[in-house]
Amino acid sequence: MPCVCTLSKLAHISPGEHIMKKNLVIETMLSHKSIRRYTDEMPSKELIETIVRAGQQAPFATQCYSVILSKDQKKNPYKAPLLFTICVDPHKFELIMAQRNWKMIMSDIGFMLLAIQDAALMTQNMILAARSLGLGSCLLGNAPNRADKIAEQYSLPDRVFPLVQLVVGFPAEDPPPRPRYPMEFTLFEDKYPKLNGVAVKKAMKQMDEGYLAQDYYRRQNAKISLEGNRKETHTYDTYSWTEHISRKLGQWMSDPKETLEQLEKRGFCLTGKKKRATK
Amino acid sequence: MPCVCTLSKLAHISPGEHIMKKNLVIETMLSHKSIRRYTDEMPSKELIETIVRAGQQAPFATQCYSVILSKDQKKNPYKAPLLFTICVDPHKFELIMAQRNWKMIMSDIGFMLLAIQDAALMTQNMILAARSLGLGSCLLGNAPNRADKIAEQYSLPDRVFPLVQLVVGFPAEDPPPRPRYPMEFTLFEDKYPKLNGVAVKKAMKQMDEGYLAQDYYRRQNAKISLEGNRKETHTYDTYSWTEHISRKLGQWMSDPKETLEQLEKRGFCLTGKKKRATK
Repeated sequence: MPCVCTLSKLAHISPGEHIMKKNLVIETMLSHKSIRRYTDEMPSKELIETIVRAGQQAPFATQCYSVILSKDQKKNPYKAPLLFTICVDPHKFELIMAQRNWKMIMSDIGFMLLAIQDAALMTQNMILAARSLGLGSCLLGNAPNRADKIAEQYSLPDRVFPLVQLVVGFPAEDPPPRPRYPMEFTLFEDKYPKLNGVAVKKAMKQMDEGYLAQDYYRRQNAKISLEGNRKETHTYDTYSWTEHISRKLGQWMSDPKETLEQLEKRGFCLTGKKKRATK
Repeated sequence: MPCVCTLSKLAHISPGEHIMKKNLVIETMLSHKSIRRYTDEMPSKELIETIVRAGQQAPFATQCYSVILSKDQKKNPYKAPLLFTICVDPHKFELIMAQRNWKMIMSDIGFMLLAIQDAALMTQNMILAARSLGLGSCLLGNAPNRADKIAEQYSLPDRVFPLVQLVVGFPAEDPPPRPRYPMEFTLFEDKYPKLNGVAVKKAMKQMDEGYLAQDYYRRQNAKISLEGNRKETHTYDTYSWTEHISRKLGQWMSDPKETLEQLEKRGFCLTGKKKRATK
């Protein structure tokens, strides 16, 4: 199977362009795109384990994650052959601690700030490993809101929290990479600058014009409806990234209880008030 | 400059080995090791921006992160030329929302579960990009506990939280990759298994014997002292990974207030009780 990174076309990228063109690792990163259409072909056990093994080698603070794989294509949101559920998993390490006569006392909030990162570092390796092997992927961010249902589906024990899901399969589409913020809106040296309207508008323009040029939201028919008395003023000719993300952050998940309760059902108490579940 | 991934020696890895040997992206992942000794050579602006640009192209839910770079080698914990502080940053997007007549209403806990992942996905790309360019790196996980000091140092505005720091430079050491859990302790199909003592001990053995074979903790002189009445029973002949991490999770950061207060000082309230800071 050819390595996809040698085949992909580079999006136009400004900084360090000539370094990048020589470097397959960076080219694989820069040509990343989420894939939402897949063929039916099932990746081999060897490919699957290679992806997970590469994921594991990401740096870690605690290695407190687990990966659940489902090959049930009917339940897969994009009808892809693979669905990985990446979980934050202190349960496993608590079994190890018991063998060593230790008990976890680190607060759940302190622990989670480390363990979520471990799980995400691993996930990014899995995404790139998959891509380098000719596979595509798409992250699904709503696992925390469905943690109870996912836990039931996979018989997750107490103290295992489904953080994110990753759809993987052979791609049946080849969209272009999506735009990102300008470098000067991302990297700051020595001091966080005062970001004035000019800088903010420039970042908005790069994102919005980039997505509009790809007709991204129209193709996906992904406009988010307005709640309350707000009146729609956008068609797909003007609806773009900053409006889309504003509608998410400005309308969704306003109640912290929804998320905190999902965490508590799985045995995590970030506020430190509740006693730990049976241990 | 030669691409380090073509030069590195692969650690002995079992699954999918012959696939991996053909794939520079996966080889770069599998040969990852944290670097704690650096040369004084300053990476060029082009290299730095290449690393950050590759980081940016990781998938995101919100793109709510910022990266602060310090070249102050004296303040760098490993005297390396570069220290990146990767921040969770809703501040920038709130400026965009204001331009669009929106206000963030998503709860901080719901938001953080997404944004921490975004920042970590980006960080992993930076780590691999650096390595592919011949640079080494080491993550520092204690930024959240020093968030107030870091915020002061870099003039971070309200609603910018320093999540993790990444030391980067040209390596002056070449340690082997560190061991990871067995595949069967990491990847589960369809159902989370009941992990019995045999499985737990096998995972412990792989980690502990792997670290001991590299004399890892003795070389780093990194044994964690015991608190309270516990009596030391380990020398560096037996002190290894599971004992080391047990001492962290079993002794450190027991009070959630420490972490929650650092978050609140930066304008994040995960419990949803406090009003948002001025916005």
